[in-house]
Amino acid sequence: MKTIVVGGVAGGMSTAARLRRLDESAEIVVLERGPHVSYANCGLPYRVGGVIAEREALLPHSPASLSARLALDIRVRHEALAVDREARTLLVRDLTTGEEYEEGWDRLVLAPGARPVVPDVPGVERALTLRDVTDTDRVLERLGTGARTAVVIGGGFIGVETAENLRLRGLGVTLVELADRILPHLDPEMAVAPAAELARHGVVIRTGTKVVRVPPDAVETSDGERLPADLVLLAVGVRPEIDLARAAGLVIGPRGGIAVDERMRTSDPRILAVGDAAEKRDALSGEPVLIPLANLANRHGRLAADAILDRPVAARPCAGTSILRVLDLTVAACGWSETRLRAAGRPHRVIHTHPASHAGYYPGAEPMSLKLLVEPGSERILGAQAVGGEGVDKRIDVLATAMAAGLPAPRLADIELAYAPPYGAARDPITMLGHIAENLADGTARTVQWHEVDAAREAGATLVDVRTPAEYAAGALPGAVNIPVDELRERLGEVPPDSRVIVYCRVGARGHVAARILAGHGRDVRNLDGGLLTRRAGEAAGGGRRP
Amino acid sequence: MKTIVVGGVAGGMSTAARLRRLDESAEIVVLERGPHVSYANCGLPYRVGGVIAEREALLPHSPASLSARLALDIRVRHEALAVDREARTLLVRDLTTGEEYEEGWDRLVLAPGARPVVPDVPGVERALTLRDVTDTDRVLERLGTGARTAVVIGGGFIGVETAENLRLRGLGVTLVELADRILPHLDPEMAVAPAAELARHGVVIRTGTKVVRVPPDAVETSDGERLPADLVLLAVGVRPEIDLARAAGLVIGPRGGIAVDERMRTSDPRILAVGDAAEKRDALSGEPVLIPLANLANRHGRLAADAILDRPVAARPCAGTSILRVLDLTVAACGWSETRLRAAGRPHRVIHTHPASHAGYYPGAEPMSLKLLVEPGSERILGAQAVGGEGVDKRIDVLATAMAAGLPAPRLADIELAYAPPYGAARDPITMLGHIAENLADGTARTVQWHEVDAAREAGATLVDVRTPAEYAAGALPGAVNIPVDELRERLGEVPPDSRVIVYCRVGARGHVAARILAGHGRDVRNLDGGLLTRRAGEAAGGGRRP
Repeated sequence: MKTIVVGGVAGGMSTAARLRRLDESAEIVVLERGPHVSYANCGLPYRVGGVIAEREALLPHSPASLSARLALDIRVRHEALAVDREARTLLVRDLTTGEEYEEGWDRLVLAPGARPVVPDVPGVERALTLRDVTDTDRVLERLGTGARTAVVIGGGFIGVETAENLRLRGLGVTLVELADRILPHLDPEMAVAPAAELARHGVVIRTGTKVVRVPPDAVETSDGERLPADLVLLAVGVRPEIDLARAAGLVIGPRGGIAVDERMRTSDPRILAVGDAAEKRDALSGEPVLIPLANLANRHGRLAADAILDRPVAARPCAGTSILRVLDLTVAACGWSETRLRAAGRPHRVIHTHPASHAGYYPGAEPMSLKLLVEPGSERILGAQAVGGEGVDKRIDVLATAMAAGLPAPRLADIELAYAPPYGAARDPITMLGHIAENLADGTARTVQWHEVDAAREAGATLVDVRTPAEYAAGALPGAVNIPVDELRERLGEVPPDSRVIVYCRVGARGHVAARILAGHGRDVRNLDGGLLTRRAGEAAGGGRRP
Repeated sequence: MKTIVVGGVAGGMSTAARLRRLDESAEIVVLERGPHVSYANCGLPYRVGGVIAEREALLPHSPASLSARLALDIRVRHEALAVDREARTLLVRDLTTGEEYEEGWDRLVLAPGARPVVPDVPGVERALTLRDVTDTDRVLERLGTGARTAVVIGGGFIGVETAENLRLRGLGVTLVELADRILPHLDPEMAVAPAAELARHGVVIRTGTKVVRVPPDAVETSDGERLPADLVLLAVGVRPEIDLARAAGLVIGPRGGIAVDERMRTSDPRILAVGDAAEKRDALSGEPVLIPLANLANRHGRLAADAILDRPVAARPCAGTSILRVLDLTVAACGWSETRLRAAGRPHRVIHTHPASHAGYYPGAEPMSLKLLVEPGSERILGAQAVGGEGVDKRIDVLATAMAAGLPAPRLADIELAYAPPYGAARDPITMLGHIAENLADGTARTVQWHEVDAAREAGATLVDVRTPAEYAAGALPGAVNIPVDELRERLGEVPPDSRVIVYCRVGARGHVAARILAGHGRDVRNLDGGLLTRRAGEAAGGGRRP
């Protein structure tokens, strides 16, 4: 049986390699439009920054090395032009010679990836993108010819990573984002810290800003601002490469990617599709979704090979776990954000915590902010976000694993996580999330969110700041009275008996104790989830109310 | 309702605190024999090493601060002497005044912890132990009076952590262990690296060695060796504190701890027990087990409070996840070891891998060794071990989560782990474990273990080293022929057709490709699991055969 794989990077090469390992006699042709196969796509921004010093590091495999290892017929700079499903042939152009030829197949795997979205703005053609190794060459060439200033258009993963790396190169960098915040996969209050981290390192950020023109030395915005830009980097998103599939009459899904089933088969079962070009199934909604991530491309590429050989496999629905470094911060997430849950009208509970990465008494602990989204009733984990230093990746991976396994949120407290002082806490941040989820599920804890405080106060709630007088004096919520938690039992009389009470502390822990004390004395009390830290982040994101 | 908690550290104080948060009107008395409550037990070795510079860091809570926060009646230096179950009273001695008194209770919670085992060896009374803050004072005092040499007796967690810390203080340190290896919760080949790490930093290790005498300036061993020892630190294990429970007629379990049910109730349902003194239920066998770990003490302490208040809780069986730092290494494990599985006669598959902590092209990746134990058929994860640098804690936590959730090993490949180059790989080490588990489950991969090679060769198997000639020349297995994987298809004729073939490479990855090539050409082939790295570790642990 002969298989042609269109696209020789993550998904496509995973298919080819697995196919060979499963079938020594298979005929496998890999067509790659570009000059490189299986390159380190996710490393491109770090090559721009010089963090990855050697270009060769991005090219761990060559067509020759992969051919030798896996007996693949790899043809780089060969473009697939048209599929003839009836004849089971593919029209191919050799981009080096210009020659066109037909290649027959029994199975065809489409893994062409996604291409950068280019907005229709005058002058945008001078903007560079970052999709392959050749693109990094172009950026580095521009840097080598004395670029001093850069504008990065787009505040998603690649935009932020590239802004950071250009800044590390010493350029004056402005990051322009159309939405009201960078990293819009995060909720507003969680996106504040990474934006501040970029700003702290001198990256200028313009959110809610549209690029209207790209003259030769600048970028002009909808605010009338003219941002100096020797270099313009475009990173406003990617769009699946579907031309070939569409021309072949394959079904394109509602999100604009190639529609596939759980065995990666397109509407023509002899043609499969994987990677950024293919739609995936969302773990929460079950709906088609686009998730342009390398690990899913690899995973689905492998499954495609299994499917071709009629092995009993099925792709799992996807939670889209992601992570990025933002200078000294780590930003990670899995599942849905609160923003997305609200937009979809899905019931959810919100938990914010601000734990230390490991036992506070052991040197080097770093703060992090965690957010967990839970489905009331089922207590299913819907999503999580984490921002901080050490240990952020670990906590999101644990939560992603719990999600994948269907572990309800309160059961997070039952996971035996590896604890010694350098690595965690006897009550790990994950354990604490489990406790809080359990307390919320059974009504032991009741909370208000950072954006609900103002309305509650206007409705007559009493705000009690249960921190120390020194903390209170350094800044408290308007209208809050200060009764430190350790004095609360003696000063109960100062809390109006018939009013709803909202207690808060710095992160929510003392607030929980205070709320339990007041509840034990018959008060109608709520604790401010995530404490003042979350509230302040929310204020920074968009004022006291939900933006 | 009045509850007396005996023991004011991890488990006991967790019970008291949760009880208060759930019931503002509860009467709660905490009796602690020592002078401190809720101290940072797990930090004690690091206080010895000066890593934790301030004594106060180990004492984040005082009786006064906890009483103020939680309205607890905390009595330090008060010892529980005898339980009268009929009268529901406890005889208590105030160790400061010597006075004895009776205290009534409705519920009694026993959380007395465990005490260091002291072997019956002449002179052992001068050996110090490390159980509480006062113990660290004693060690530091000895260091302050000029101790230059130390012998640590016992190569478990506390022994290794203390040996490291005494070495960091500049002492000449010998670690003496009765078993054939240190860290016996690890399998032999996994314990080699931490032993080498200690040796690299100058800690002298004597395994298979019994201490026979402790004269004033040395430790004398069964080998007739006299190890200089200004300081002797005893860490040969702990034993549950059960005197009070036994005298009260409560059932002591088969492992020597207080027997409890899943609601932490002893044989007298009004008396509960948690922490190191209580037996736990093993996640694999369902049998009683002792696991003296702080996180379980805290978890079960919290559950005890819930149980007292008739809330619907139940302790989960325990996998005993552990971690420790060994200088620049991290050593973590969960579930059962291969050694334990073999001893119990439980069927298991073994997987060794040696991945990098993150994408190889991004700077700073560190090697690690992973071992996964899987139940054939159910594909249930039975245990895991990890040794290395960055990311070891993360991978064990993911595996512990998968175990807790009952995720079968092949499904590890479906977990969407957070990937960006600084944090992981597009094929994370966990993903790879899932792939290998799947390949073993369906027969795509067949492996031999490091200790099976010699017997296989003697039985006539052909050994093929599929690494490069340069690697082969630098050291190969006896009798192995060298056919690099990339030449294997052309040199098939060099592999005897009727012999069992064992292929190997450095870590097992190229071996897998080679095995698939040979299997595709009809050969009866096995890949050496974990490659030469695992084999060499096994040899270092005990020769080529299972020790």
